[in-house]
Amino acid sequence: MSHLPTIAEELQPIVWQDGHLLLLDQTQLPAREEWVTVRDVAGAIEAVRAMRVRGAPAIGIAAAYAMALAAHSIEVPTMPAFLGELDAQAERIAAARPTAVNLAWAVERSMGVARTCSTPAEAAERILALAHTMREEDVESNRAIGRNGAALMPDSGAILTHCNTGALATAGYGTALGVIRAAWDSGKRVQVFCTETRPWLQGARLTAWELARLGIHATLIVDSAAGALMASGGVAAVVTGADRIAANGDTANKIGTYSLAELAAANGIPFYIAAPLSTVDLDVKSGADIPVEERPAVEVTSLAGQRIAAEGVDVWNPVFDMTPARLITAIITERGVLRPPYEAQLRAPHPSPLPQEKTVA
Amino acid sequence: MSHLPTIAEELQPIVWQDGHLLLLDQTQLPAREEWVTVRDVAGAIEAVRAMRVRGAPAIGIAAAYAMALAAHSIEVPTMPAFLGELDAQAERIAAARPTAVNLAWAVERSMGVARTCSTPAEAAERILALAHTMREEDVESNRAIGRNGAALMPDSGAILTHCNTGALATAGYGTALGVIRAAWDSGKRVQVFCTETRPWLQGARLTAWELARLGIHATLIVDSAAGALMASGGVAAVVTGADRIAANGDTANKIGTYSLAELAAANGIPFYIAAPLSTVDLDVKSGADIPVEERPAVEVTSLAGQRIAAEGVDVWNPVFDMTPARLITAIITERGVLRPPYEAQLRAPHPSPLPQEKTVA
Repeated sequence: MSHLPTIAEELQPIVWQDGHLLLLDQTQLPAREEWVTVRDVAGAIEAVRAMRVRGAPAIGIAAAYAMALAAHSIEVPTMPAFLGELDAQAERIAAARPTAVNLAWAVERSMGVARTCSTPAEAAERILALAHTMREEDVESNRAIGRNGAALMPDSGAILTHCNTGALATAGYGTALGVIRAAWDSGKRVQVFCTETRPWLQGARLTAWELARLGIHATLIVDSAAGALMASGGVAAVVTGADRIAANGDTANKIGTYSLAELAAANGIPFYIAAPLSTVDLDVKSGADIPVEERPAVEVTSLAGQRIAAEGVDVWNPVFDMTPARLITAIITERGVLRPPYEAQLRAPHPSPLPQEKTVA
Repeated sequence: MSHLPTIAEELQPIVWQDGHLLLLDQTQLPAREEWVTVRDVAGAIEAVRAMRVRGAPAIGIAAAYAMALAAHSIEVPTMPAFLGELDAQAERIAAARPTAVNLAWAVERSMGVARTCSTPAEAAERILALAHTMREEDVESNRAIGRNGAALMPDSGAILTHCNTGALATAGYGTALGVIRAAWDSGKRVQVFCTETRPWLQGARLTAWELARLGIHATLIVDSAAGALMASGGVAAVVTGADRIAANGDTANKIGTYSLAELAAANGIPFYIAAPLSTVDLDVKSGADIPVEERPAVEVTSLAGQRIAAEGVDVWNPVFDMTPARLITAIITERGVLRPPYEAQLRAPHPSPLPQEKTVA
């Protein structure tokens, strides 16, 4: 474990330093601000699996750096051998978690760059440069999402969000939380209700921490209080992130997102998804085709090493759920605000600086 | 703290023994089966407020015994003085928690009996007899609710329930969990999904414990996974208890119940409330008139003495929410299954053995 002396004014949880990847360990927040040093692919995979880094955009950037670590560690003289070994590492990295498409997207971009190189050394250098670029692109995308989404937010009143979609879930700034932040920065006097987000408590631990840091008033609720809050008239808009968006707009996101969308619809409240277009997977037609990760029972039955559930009970612990496109008022992207029906807009060619067209420096 | 050597085959969490009230302490389950001895009204109020005894029917029975403790402790010779002091104690007991109507109902029944007595000694004796009767009535009611509700349950498949509505929430047998249990005992091969029920984890701690004890297969989910579960087609029916039912059928119950009802409606799944008619409050027209208790922030921000939320965040911790009658497929009572519109049926004269007509022995 390494400790950075101070957190930068602008929180960025993924840092490349002295040939290593540093990650602000999200399993330790808010109690401790610890940075974990990742030196190889195995370390990166452990960090993703153990959720030291989490959030679809953030694990995409971490995967890009993991590819750089892989490329620098492969010691073969020829490009075919190099590409073969790199591809094997890419598969391992992409498989670290199954739902967010960003892992696969990041390693594919890295492989694409590698295939254009003449030597392993050049490839290693350019893959690292790509990771830096993707990190910068992500922050830029998030700022654009924020600008685009801020206009949809109320001038005052409360916004409900779920899980953590802030700087910690990205390379910086945040997606859904970025929208809230941009609304605040534009002078809208909003306040935030954040769900605690069981079982990992990303809302209680991370979103509450980020909002306190930003000086935006936050109120924490248990996940199941969201319905009562919406029925009370206390919510002007709901905005969440996304882990994968299918071609038709169906969205996989943190477990509980579907419930919030259904409750928002029942109470006449707009429900927004805020995500970069890197989260869109045009290869999956609908939410039914997105694999949903299930994590171990112990995440539900224990907390901080302490058993909280009775013995003898089974557990179903899906990490994500699927929100059908019909419940999504709009998808806020860096390119603009998409309205239903989504498919044609999601399939339209993406102007720069979208990942697939961007030329890597 | 007293320890009973064994739990009776049929779990009954409220026991009168040697002039004291013994409560199976529900803050300690499932880790420890501890019985707390209640010797006076202050002890009873502490036990209700601290949720050592919880569940609308159970706190009603505890209140009836608290009235017996009060009656036995008042040392005045004349009935007017006795009734005056008893009434003051009744008000304290009824105010221990605001939402469940059962506290008020129990102390009113006790006062009604007291007013027919000639001496304080006679009143004390009859109030204790009433408490015993109410305890027996509650178990009988629950068995009748179980019989009435079992017919509505599927022959196989999964039933989703929320919070704890089993023997622990009542004098014995349970309401919604009693329905599930009666369905099982009638040969229906159902399984149960129980929500963990944040922040108190009654589902994870108590319902899972009761179902394991009964040998009924249970699967635990975080509260926010209920929507995904319902959307997956994995739930044949939802059944919960009630803390107070308004004259129009609107139902106050554990926070999150409204969300489950809305999600059930959206997914075409029947949603049932199972509760004794003592939970009906004809004096409130609709759910809007039912007071909803809010409990301290620390219940959400800490667990087992450990801080789990970031500092600097506010908390909204409502204990109950309101499910509108239009979302309730049926209300399962000891008198039978009520279907919407509910008001006329709820206002119909209750045949014996309903509380308001029952003559106390």
